[in-house]
Amino acid sequence: MHVDPKRTIAELKELRALTGDENGAQRIAWSDMWLKAREWFTSKLEGLPVERHYDAAGNHWITLDGESNKALILGSHLDSVPNGGWLDGCLGVMTALETLRGFVRAHNGRPPVTIRLVDWADEEGARFGRSLLGSSAFAGTDTIDSDRGRTDKDGVRLEDALRRCGVEIDRFPEARREQAHAAAYLELHIEQGPVLEGLGLPLGAVLGTKGVERHAVSFHGQEAHSGSTPMAVRRDALAAAAKLALEIRTIAGKHPDAVSTMGSVKTFPGIVTAVVGRCEATLDQRDLDAAILSGMYNEARQASERFAQEERCTVEWSRIWNIEPVPFHPALVDLCEQAVKETAGVVHRLPSGPLHDAAEVARAGIPTVMMFVQSLRGISHNKIEDTKEEHLEMAVQAFGKLAGKTAKWILST
Amino acid sequence: MHVDPKRTIAELKELRALTGDENGAQRIAWSDMWLKAREWFTSKLEGLPVERHYDAAGNHWITLDGESNKALILGSHLDSVPNGGWLDGCLGVMTALETLRGFVRAHNGRPPVTIRLVDWADEEGARFGRSLLGSSAFAGTDTIDSDRGRTDKDGVRLEDALRRCGVEIDRFPEARREQAHAAAYLELHIEQGPVLEGLGLPLGAVLGTKGVERHAVSFHGQEAHSGSTPMAVRRDALAAAAKLALEIRTIAGKHPDAVSTMGSVKTFPGIVTAVVGRCEATLDQRDLDAAILSGMYNEARQASERFAQEERCTVEWSRIWNIEPVPFHPALVDLCEQAVKETAGVVHRLPSGPLHDAAEVARAGIPTVMMFVQSLRGISHNKIEDTKEEHLEMAVQAFGKLAGKTAKWILST
Repeated sequence: MHVDPKRTIAELKELRALTGDENGAQRIAWSDMWLKAREWFTSKLEGLPVERHYDAAGNHWITLDGESNKALILGSHLDSVPNGGWLDGCLGVMTALETLRGFVRAHNGRPPVTIRLVDWADEEGARFGRSLLGSSAFAGTDTIDSDRGRTDKDGVRLEDALRRCGVEIDRFPEARREQAHAAAYLELHIEQGPVLEGLGLPLGAVLGTKGVERHAVSFHGQEAHSGSTPMAVRRDALAAAAKLALEIRTIAGKHPDAVSTMGSVKTFPGIVTAVVGRCEATLDQRDLDAAILSGMYNEARQASERFAQEERCTVEWSRIWNIEPVPFHPALVDLCEQAVKETAGVVHRLPSGPLHDAAEVARAGIPTVMMFVQSLRGISHNKIEDTKEEHLEMAVQAFGKLAGKTAKWILST
Repeated sequence: MHVDPKRTIAELKELRALTGDENGAQRIAWSDMWLKAREWFTSKLEGLPVERHYDAAGNHWITLDGESNKALILGSHLDSVPNGGWLDGCLGVMTALETLRGFVRAHNGRPPVTIRLVDWADEEGARFGRSLLGSSAFAGTDTIDSDRGRTDKDGVRLEDALRRCGVEIDRFPEARREQAHAAAYLELHIEQGPVLEGLGLPLGAVLGTKGVERHAVSFHGQEAHSGSTPMAVRRDALAAAAKLALEIRTIAGKHPDAVSTMGSVKTFPGIVTAVVGRCEATLDQRDLDAAILSGMYNEARQASERFAQEERCTVEWSRIWNIEPVPFHPALVDLCEQAVKETAGVVHRLPSGPLHDAAEVARAGIPTVMMFVQSLRGISHNKIEDTKEEHLEMAVQAFGKLAGKTAKWILST
């Protein structure tokens, strides 16, 4: 199947010029700039033998009917964070479009399986703090009642922002209908991390998205005067938190792909002349293996209790959020690995730390895999996000091969 | 020499009722409530054969002439922090008054040495963040140019607040004249720490005030995504700070009286999903021995550089404030110990972590000692600050004995 990677890169640059400014991409979901990006995308469909519509959650579906109604879905998202990069999300959408064009050409407009392209609505959750909004509606994992009242920084309710774009949150469940005949889902994305760059590899096959345990951990000791309180009688909440900050790294270090982060520490009263009486920290632990993740969480919790006892403090945990690991489909991971190897000569399998719409699709039981292309310096969600053009070209080529292999796999299963 | 401790306790309760509310003492320096406290104190001098005046820094001097013009000075401060306790400062002033009365009675109004009582102005620095204001003017260690422009939370300048109370900051140097004939200085204060209570002792002889090294320590690493950044490539500024938070305790632990406190930690960006790129901490180290203090500072600094290197971060130090240790006069510490032992049967020598006006007096080269009385739970600067009345009574008795011994010591030197 023939694809034209240079056209994809040219289109990405066109989109950047149309929907970005000197600070980066500004395609925040439900904004005018996002609608403009979707309109521009629609204009690229002209002349293609496809049907298109928005589902009840605002996801944009483009369908090229095939000999079989079993559908191969290719997707990603056009929305961006504020001041975002030029590749996050839209690389996947534009590569899916180029792949769909390839299917049209290769099969005179009627491929052996149905090809569907999806531009998910509000992957980033940048405005309302709820990521994967459209894909969760598709998967039936939406949380309408807790989401409808979310507000943006100007106090606008999520429900009202969606309505302005023609989406009624109460009709979200209808989006599940798009699951009909779905046989596989493929998504290309920049890695957003430093692993492939560190290995000197352009492309990787993604094993799945890591599960996340996200907690607030609060140590309570006793505020005391820094001058008059001997070391031996202190109940220093910061000391207990500092021990935990170091221990979570040891715990994660026992597993090759696990990560563990204390991202925020707050001290109370937080003044130079007082022993810390209360220390509030956050913990974010991730792994692809549910048993490992749950073990890490338990180890950290036990360690925090030990440290609290050592410092004569108490500790309280409160879950902020969690999600189970979502492993991708083994047969599709194999196909992805083949496609990468045929294109780049070498391949690496890696889990994804960040979440993606693909995780929601996989949770709906649809065989899923993602392909990653190297990110320079591992940076994304920033205007300096970048990938070498030669790597982008290889990505479009490899994704086309993966789609071809997956179409055959669908017919064989 | 006879003193009446019960009268002192009654007067302290009278002052509490007059200048406190349901949240505690409200005698903030340069406020109306503070002026009211000073007026009340002045009324207590009626009938005593004393001269009184305010010096150029607002310190209140009461002088009982003696056979010798060599002066024994007894002092403390009537000002309090907002929502302060009923003993911090005013216990020392009212005990000094009771001692002065004892000298009047014992010597028919003309003791062998001159007895002076001083109520220092603005010991706490609660309103403008500049403690020991009046006593530093007396000692000649004032910092007029950097202090005059300090503002309170309402934007009032220190200079203007003083002028309202009849004090011209530019005349501060004239306060040094009060040093004339000063032969010794004694101050009684609550411990404001848990040491005496921990030892089950009512009173202690104070060895001096600890020196302080106070620094801002800032670690710089690299902000990174908590999901996509492997542990091995992180540059985690919090990890370096956590190591330092623990190491400063080990460093202080090598010296019996040293203390070391990380009182504030701030993380940037400080969100649950990002490795900490920048961590700002404060460090407060104290010891009575200048060489130990300087060694502790150097050790902490070297440790921070080692930790920064281990975490591939950089570290910057910036001095917030420092003061050298001020050891009290060995002969007076001995006299204080004797007076405590005669009163309570047992005694303990201890350094003071918090600073006191006595430190400024000692820096002026005047032989100085302080006596501490036990604080319940080591708490001060709070309305729950308290000391058992039996301990307060012993403190007034012991301080009277110390004053008598010191008067004799002055004549013998």
